[in-house]
This record gives sequence, structure tokens and C-alpha cells, in this order.
Amino acid sequence: MSLRPTLDFLLYDWLKVGQLGERERFADHSRETFDAVLDTCERIAREKYAPFNRLVDTEEPRFDGEKVILPRATHEAHRAYVESGMVSAAQDYEEGGMQLPYTIEAAANGFFAVASVSIGSSLLTKGNANLLMVHGTGAQKEVFARNEFAGRFTGTMCLSEPQAGSSLSDITTRAVPDGEGFEADPLGPRYRLKGNKMWISAGEHELSENIIHLVLAKIPGPDGKLIPGTRGISLFIVPKKLVGTDGRLTGERNDVALAGLNHKLGWRGTTNTLLNFGEGRYPVRGAPGAIGYLVGRPHEGLRCMFHMMNEARIGIGMAATSLGLAGYYASLDYARNRPQGRPVGPAGKDPSQPQIRIIEHADVKRMLLAQKSYCEGALALLLYCARLVDEQHTGTPEAADEARALLEVLTPIAKSWPSEFCLEANSLAIQIHGGYGYTRDFPVEQYWRDNRLNMIHEGTHGIQAADLLGRKVTMEGGRGLQLLAGRINATIERAIQRPELAAYANQLGQALQQVGAATQAAWATGDPGDALANAVPYMQAAGHLVLAWTWLDVLLAIPADAVREVAVHQGRMRAAAYFYRYELPRIDAWLQVVARRDRTCADMPEEAF
Amino acid sequence: MSLRPTLDFLLYDWLKVGQLGERERFADHSRETFDAVLDTCERIAREKYAPFNRLVDTEEPRFDGEKVILPRATHEAHRAYVESGMVSAAQDYEEGGMQLPYTIEAAANGFFAVASVSIGSSLLTKGNANLLMVHGTGAQKEVFARNEFAGRFTGTMCLSEPQAGSSLSDITTRAVPDGEGFEADPLGPRYRLKGNKMWISAGEHELSENIIHLVLAKIPGPDGKLIPGTRGISLFIVPKKLVGTDGRLTGERNDVALAGLNHKLGWRGTTNTLLNFGEGRYPVRGAPGAIGYLVGRPHEGLRCMFHMMNEARIGIGMAATSLGLAGYYASLDYARNRPQGRPVGPAGKDPSQPQIRIIEHADVKRMLLAQKSYCEGALALLLYCARLVDEQHTGTPEAADEARALLEVLTPIAKSWPSEFCLEANSLAIQIHGGYGYTRDFPVEQYWRDNRLNMIHEGTHGIQAADLLGRKVTMEGGRGLQLLAGRINATIERAIQRPELAAYANQLGQALQQVGAATQAAWATGDPGDALANAVPYMQAAGHLVLAWTWLDVLLAIPADAVREVAVHQGRMRAAAYFYRYELPRIDAWLQVVARRDRTCADMPEEAF
Repeated sequence: MSLRPTLDFLLYDWLKVGQLGERERFADHSRETFDAVLDTCERIAREKYAPFNRLVDTEEPRFDGEKVILPRATHEAHRAYVESGMVSAAQDYEEGGMQLPYTIEAAANGFFAVASVSIGSSLLTKGNANLLMVHGTGAQKEVFARNEFAGRFTGTMCLSEPQAGSSLSDITTRAVPDGEGFEADPLGPRYRLKGNKMWISAGEHELSENIIHLVLAKIPGPDGKLIPGTRGISLFIVPKKLVGTDGRLTGERNDVALAGLNHKLGWRGTTNTLLNFGEGRYPVRGAPGAIGYLVGRPHEGLRCMFHMMNEARIGIGMAATSLGLAGYYASLDYARNRPQGRPVGPAGKDPSQPQIRIIEHADVKRMLLAQKSYCEGALALLLYCARLVDEQHTGTPEAADEARALLEVLTPIAKSWPSEFCLEANSLAIQIHGGYGYTRDFPVEQYWRDNRLNMIHEGTHGIQAADLLGRKVTMEGGRGLQLLAGRINATIERAIQRPELAAYANQLGQALQQVGAATQAAWATGDPGDALANAVPYMQAAGHLVLAWTWLDVLLAIPADAVREVAVHQGRMRAAAYFYRYELPRIDAWLQVVARRDRTCADMPEEAF
Repeated sequence: MSLRPTLDFLLYDWLKVGQLGERERFADHSRETFDAVLDTCERIAREKYAPFNRLVDTEEPRFDGEKVILPRATHEAHRAYVESGMVSAAQDYEEGGMQLPYTIEAAANGFFAVASVSIGSSLLTKGNANLLMVHGTGAQKEVFARNEFAGRFTGTMCLSEPQAGSSLSDITTRAVPDGEGFEADPLGPRYRLKGNKMWISAGEHELSENIIHLVLAKIPGPDGKLIPGTRGISLFIVPKKLVGTDGRLTGERNDVALAGLNHKLGWRGTTNTLLNFGEGRYPVRGAPGAIGYLVGRPHEGLRCMFHMMNEARIGIGMAATSLGLAGYYASLDYARNRPQGRPVGPAGKDPSQPQIRIIEHADVKRMLLAQKSYCEGALALLLYCARLVDEQHTGTPEAADEARALLEVLTPIAKSWPSEFCLEANSLAIQIHGGYGYTRDFPVEQYWRDNRLNMIHEGTHGIQAADLLGRKVTMEGGRGLQLLAGRINATIERAIQRPELAAYANQLGQALQQVGAATQAAWATGDPGDALANAVPYMQAAGHLVLAWTWLDVLLAIPADAVREVAVHQGRMRAAAYFYRYELPRIDAWLQVVARRDRTCADMPEEAF
């Protein structure tokens, strides 16, 4: 099984991504150039990623006291990725990029994540460099971002601290001006940073010449105290090794020290670190603290960082989905080849008949169809979101703003839904393998472990839910939700005209009303405590609504005469049918508690646990 | 947090297990003796199991070419367990046992499984020896079973083969008479076995003097061919080392060879093996094959083995539940101590206020309450089933038969429901820990990995579901299901009289009707293909019904005036409320597909995946 045919259908037949070539920015592009990119990524993933996915799980990163050691395969995968030009693919031509649409980049990322989600960590480098391209000075772009795009440097995002994970307002890393003339440094106002940063992916390794940390820290006020809350947060570039304005390393090691490697349940190919900034292990230029250069204006660090959040969250959703697909492909292959048992009913009573393959059992088909329905549905949603990102960047002002408002509402779903349901898909993939799935001789247990991260990082499930119900559905007078309802209704109107889809259209209309009514009811008292008491069930229901809509919209891309004729289209029809018949009805239970503002959990006395 | 107060409440206040002392078999017993047993087991679990749970995960069993090496802690835990007398606790006094009720034994097992589910594997030894006590000859009991109870020997169950896991009718291990006079061996008719057995837990180790394998194999007919199907299966005792009629080792190694250790996702403290019988690595007594002694009559092996199945499956449910509880306790402790974030609403807007502990967040309370509701509910159900086992063994003939019929229906649920929902509880325990939960510095990721086994072994989820809907609810004219409905209705009648429970009673009555109607509808065409197409959703709904009933029945054990006064009872009320408000409504979606005999999955064409 390969991801490619599904991607092709979704990109070209459904999203009509080929038409992006009509836009000025993408004028040199066409399906042909997109295919060439996808071909290259598919090949690199097959040759440099997939064969080493188990290896990077068993040979975890280790610190020898001086360096973090990664398997040679990780170095080679990194090199192949960098050499493909994909790090800077979305950048302007004059920046050395290929002005590739984000949709194609997101699709291409699917190949890598299906093959080995943790061997590469270039997403962070891209996010880091992209941020600098927007908020950095000319010199910061030149010295840091461009060298990241070129593959010389890699990047990190340093947000969390041991005592501040979900609650970034509580970070305590301090940044103080680095002496006289600190503001005049050609690389940006120069500060000295001191503090600890936790959960830093790719925070230490030897894959690149240098590591560029983007660090959130607080500049103390005149009283020497940190400003409480997120208002006090600023953003700094803190390179592991100092760099001159010519982009060359100066030979000075900055005071960024590895305090520890995190030993994780999965996703082990990517180093995850606790870093100490300015603890004094690598004293630099005769003063205490790690040297960092301010990005943007003081106290606007979080705004700069969140600028990149939508794409980062879509990236997590894509990783979760890809792991789900990897498990689906593996279990489908197993089910097609593993003989076990006999048909139910009289035909199965004769034990002298040979065993059938397990794909012939209804319950195995159920587990395969659930996986297909979850993962291909999630893939479609993520590509849709990626297409909205392109719209935001290249559409007319109205279309761009509409895309932005839609993304506000869809992003928490695109991040959380795959991380929950494609994880469930991985569990089903294990189940299909039986005892073999529980062993490390088969890949599915690793997919399940790797995928468990996605409900946690880049904002936990709870944070996404509070963002969705607490902020996104109410902001701008509920505009994002109204736009979404408009798109869902447009799909319903088209689907209702096709006899084979009309029942789904009606069911979707009903679900949309239910979610709308529950949204109103949740906020009926105006008390966020009431509304958010059941934010996660709300998000689950909203996610199921969005996935049902996505599936129906995808079906509309199948020519009516091909629905019955073509096996892959039959498969899409069935996966959608599964979703409407087995999954969508689940929203009733989720929305009941939302709509009555059920406080069973919220009011549970602590001592009663 | 400790399991003990919950166990005490369920055993004594709810199930009134103290009254078992009124029965002849348990006449020497009372709450005092039961408590002494629980005290001992709790202490051993705390001292010899819990401290080494991570160790047995990281130091997996390994084969040095001759022996399987286990950590010293595993040897010490095994010794402490054996010395406690728990292996034979349920046996008659004249067998050296203490005639302990199974309910107390099952409860005591909870302590060990909460502490370290995989460090011990005595359940198999007990099941093995129990089977021999029922089906073995006097000599077999004396030589094998009694030495297992005494802790000299350990036991295994060898059912599966690489090509025959769920489908036991396809095993190909052969057993042929061992020469002239084979029938006259004092240890039972002597055969030579040849074949491979897969997934054998505790199949090789140095914990005991000897390992007694109970092996399913087929005796060829006169034509030399194996009889197809389960009819052909017989049961054999195959000791690793041969034993004389005096119980002493003869010094001869039997031809049972370790072919490989399975490297698993979790549950790593227990060795799991592929064993080759009669491959010739250890030739014995000048003929080919491993020496085995027939147990019971030829061709009745599966019947003998399934005799022990109910208790084995209750044991799995208890393991799943205990892992769920372990995660609940760990995440509750974490939530009570981890500061992060601020209240929703105006009170949380001031970042200069200190952070609150995460247990104060509604969504964390939701995740804790879900765990409590799943795991304490499952614990109650399992103890209820264990109490039925005692009834089956010591009740009046009518009561015993009723208990047996109820267990037929309840056992697939008691095995499958905890293995699905207490696994989900473990995932919530990880989620509460955030990034820390994803590291191996905290125990919750291991609980989740360990628990994933329980949906697979001792009959997969699919097998349990087919057993429940395909066999158990229809057998004896539906008697088991009718008896269950009778008990549920009795609970409803009592609950309806208590104002605080009446609403739940009504909801439960409605759910019972739904499950009953869906059962009828599933079988309306009489075609097992229709009925079983949605056996798993049926089992999930039936499981939720049974758990809802269990919770309501448990609440009836709380004195009306204590409901509001006592924190732990408030907690039970809330956990039940959670179940009725958040969980029970889920059955609608599951039962819809059952009731309309939805064939979306069953009819999916293979080529459309």
C-alpha cells in the first residue's frame, strides 16, 4: 500500500490543487512540478527513512558527556532531506526556494511521517526560519534563517520550562541587556539569558554545523522583577555557537548546556532535551548568561511565536494521520496474508477446509474500515487546512481573510482529532495482528507509541479544546464558526442532489444543527466555567462533524458513474458510510453533556477522588 | 492512594463476603481471616513487587544460550508469593490449602497486579494445577499439581501455535503413543509429542525446580492423519524435566526446547516464549518426541482446558482493572501536586497570582473521574463475578446453576470491558501528566503498554464478542441473559425507591430494554453472518449496560444518610453519575448498527480497501 494514490485523488481531483498554478506566486508550477516534488519525497522516504524506523526506536539518542550520539541513518536521512531542497521549498525564488504551495509541502511531509515520523525533525527548523523571515531583521534573516533553509543550521523552539508547560505565562527564563551598547549589535539587541527550557526537540545533536534556538524569555522591569503573565514575554535567537555577521561561526560556544535527554515512550528518533541557558558551563565573552538576540519588539514574543502556530499544529495533525495510515497499511497487508479461522455459519463448520485469510472476517473488516475512515478522512481535512493556508497567503483579500477565520476554528480540530482517532486506529492495527502486534517484530506497536505524543505536544487536547470552545467559536462574533457552517451547508446542497449521498447530507445537516445548538447552550450562562466544563467532549463532537463534512465533500469529487465501477472509489464510499453509520451518531452522547452544561466533573470535590 | 479501602467496601459492605463464613467450606473463615490474607498480600506486593515494576520492564528476560535470565527481583517476588501460601490458598485443607473463597483470592490478586502486573505469573501455575485437580489422575495430582501448589514446580498452558492462535482447531502438534505399554505408565498414558507452541508465558525460566507444561495436541487416527477441528484435540502433561512417581526429578531433560523469546510492547516481566516440543534438541529415552502424559480422555482436551477458562478470563479482567487503577492512583497523585495554570474566568486573569494545582481544572477532574468510573466499576464487576464463582462452587444446586449460567454471559464482558476501558483510563493517566507522562521517568506509560496486552490474550476482543453474541446470549434458550435481566431489574426496583438514585434506575431500565431489543434484532434473520457483523459494538454496549448496573448496585450499599456526609461515598456517587451521564448514552450509537444488522463492514469488498 502506498499513500500516493490517495494523495493524488485528494490533491488533484478533490482540492484541484493543480489550479494553483494560475496564481502569480505559483505561476511556474503545475501538476507536473508538484508530482516531481512528491516523487522525490516519496523516494527519499522509502530509501532513507522507512528502513530505519525501528533502528531509531531501539538506538535512542545518548549523550557521551560531550556530544549527543544519533545513529548514522539519522544523519543520512537528514542529509537527504536537506539536499532535496525541501527545507526551503516554500520560500521565494530569491531566497533560494521554489515557491512551492504549502499544500504540496504538507502532502510531501506525509511520505516522511508514514516512513519514520521521528527520524527527521526539520519541521522545527522550517518553523524557526519561517518565523525569522516574518519577524527578524535583515541581518537575522541573512545570518540565521537562510542558513537554516540551506541546511547548514537547524532550529528549535524553546517555549516550555519544567514548571511552565501549558501555562507559558509562568516562564521564568530571564533576559537582561548585555552591557553598554547592547542595542547596537548588528544581529539585534543583545541580551544575556538565564533559565531552563524543557521538552526541546532537536535541542542538541551533531546533525548540523549549528543549532539556532528561538527562546521565549522575560526582560525584567526597572525593579528587576519579571512582568507576570504572557505580556512580559519576549523572543530571542540563541545560537548554540556564536555566529558572525558573515554567517561564519566565530569559534565561541554559547552558554547553552544540555541538562538531560528525555527518555520517551516513543518518537525516539528525535532528541528531546532539557537545556540550561546561562548556567555557566560554557562561559562566553566574560559575562554571565547565554547570548541572545531580540527578535521583534520586547514583550511581543508570544505573538511572534503564535504566528507560526497554525502551521505547526497542522504539522502535528499530519504526523498523527501519517502514523495512523502507516498502521492501516501494515494491518491491511497482514490481514490479506494471515490465514486464521473460518467463515461464520454453516460454511465454517468444516474444519477440514483450509483456513480463510483474516481480511475475510467481518470484525477484521470493521477494524480496517475504521482505520481507513479515520485516517483518510483526517488526511483530507489536513490537506484542506493546508489549502486554506495557501489561500491565506495568495488569495484575494476577502478569500484570504475568510481562510484565516476558518483556520482559526479548524486548526484545533485538525491538531486534536487525528491525534485522538488515528491513535485509536493504531490500536486497531495492533488488534488485527493479534499477539504478533504486541511484539516488536512488527511495526504497529511502535506507531501506537509514537502517536501517543500527538495529544500532548503543541498544546494538549485540553488546551486545544479550551481554545476551540473558549476562544475560536466566539471570536469575531462567531465568524469562523459561521463560515464553517456556510461551507458545510454548501456541501450539503451539492450532496442532496446525488441520490447515493442524500441521506448523508441530511444526517450532516442534523449534526450541524446539534453542534450549533450545543455551542449556544454551552455559553448560555455566559460563565466560562459552565461552558468549558465539557470542552473536550465538545471538541470531539465538533471534530466528528468536521470529519463527516470532509468525507461527504470528498465523495462529491467522485464522478457519479465511477462510484460503483472503481474499487478505490467504492472504498471511499464505504469509509464514508462507516463514518456516517458508526461514528457520527457518537456526537449525541458528547453534546448532551455540553448542552446541559453538565458539572458532574467540574464540581467533583477533590477529597472525593 | 491504596486499593484497600475500595476493596473493603466492595467486599464487605456491598458483596457481604463476610457471610461466606456461614458456609461449610468456609466455616473457619471470617472477615478477620480474610483481612489477614489481604494484609499479607498487600505487604508482599508493596515490598517485593512495586519497587521492581520498572526494573522488570527495562531488564527483559534474555536467553544466554542455556538459561533464561530474569532479574533477581523476579526470583524474590516469586519466592515471597510462594511462601505466602497463596498458590494453594483456595485448595482443600487436606491438600495443604486454606479453603479461601475465590472472591478473596481475586481481590488479593489486585494488590499484586497494581504493584507489578508482569513480575509474577502464578496465575498460570494455579490454573494448571487446578485443572489437574479436576481432570487428572491420582498420580497426576500427587506428582504434578501438588508440587505446583507447593511452589516447587510452576506451570504453563500451551494452546496456541504460530499458525493457530484464535483458531485452536488448526493446531498441528502431534501426539503418538510411546511404544508398547504406553497406556500403563503410572503417570498416565504416555505419548510422544512433536510441534511448536507460541505465546507460552513463563515457558522457560529458572524460578522453579521444574516447569509443567499442559499441552494441547492431536492424536493421529489409524490412517496417521490428524482429525480436523477441535474434536481431535487432547491434553497432555509435558514436564520440562522428567519426574518419577515419587515426585523427584529423574535427572532426564525432556525434549522441550526454547525456540525464542517474544520481545513485547509491555508485560515484560513475564517471559513469553515459542517452544519446540520434540524437535530433537534434548533426545530423551531413545525415541523421538517430547514425553507427555494424557490428561482425561483422548479428544476431550479442549473441554478440560475450557473448564478453567472463566477464572482465567476473570483474571485477565482483574489485571486490566488493576493496571487501570495503578494509573488512576498515579495521575491523581500527580494532579494533586502539580501546579499549572489558573482558573477559567476572571479569577484566572491575574498572572501575578500563584498557579493552581491541575486537579482544580475541570478537564483534569473529568479525566480523573473517568478513570475512577471505569476502574472502580470494573473492579466491582470482577469481584461480583468472583463471588459467582464461589456461588457456583458452594451454593445450593439451584444457586450454583444460576451462578454458572450468569457467568457464561458475564465472563466475556468481565474480560473484554476492562481490557478496553481501563486501557483508555491509562491513556488518560498519561494525558494528565502531560509531557512527563510520555517519559519513562513516570510509571503511567508502562501501565498503558502493559495493559494493551489484555485485549489480545485469553481470547481477543473479537473472539469474546463472538462468544457473547454468537453463543452466550442464545444458549439454553437465552437463560443467562434472562437471569442477568432479572438481577438488573432487581437492582432497579431497589434503586427506584431512593430519590437520589431513581433517575439512574429509569435510565438503566431503558438501557436494558435497548440491549434486549438489539439482541433480538441482531438474530432476527437467524443468519449468524448478520448477527455477528457487529458483535464488538454489541459487546461494548452490553458491557456499558453491565457496568451501569454494577455501579447502581454498588451505590445501594451506601447508607442513604452517608451519601452526602462521607467523602469516599460522594466520590462513588460522582463516579456513578459520570458513568450514567457521560458513558451510558454511548450505547445508542453502538446498538444502532447492531439492531439494523448493518453490513457496511461485512460487505466491504477486499479490493476496495
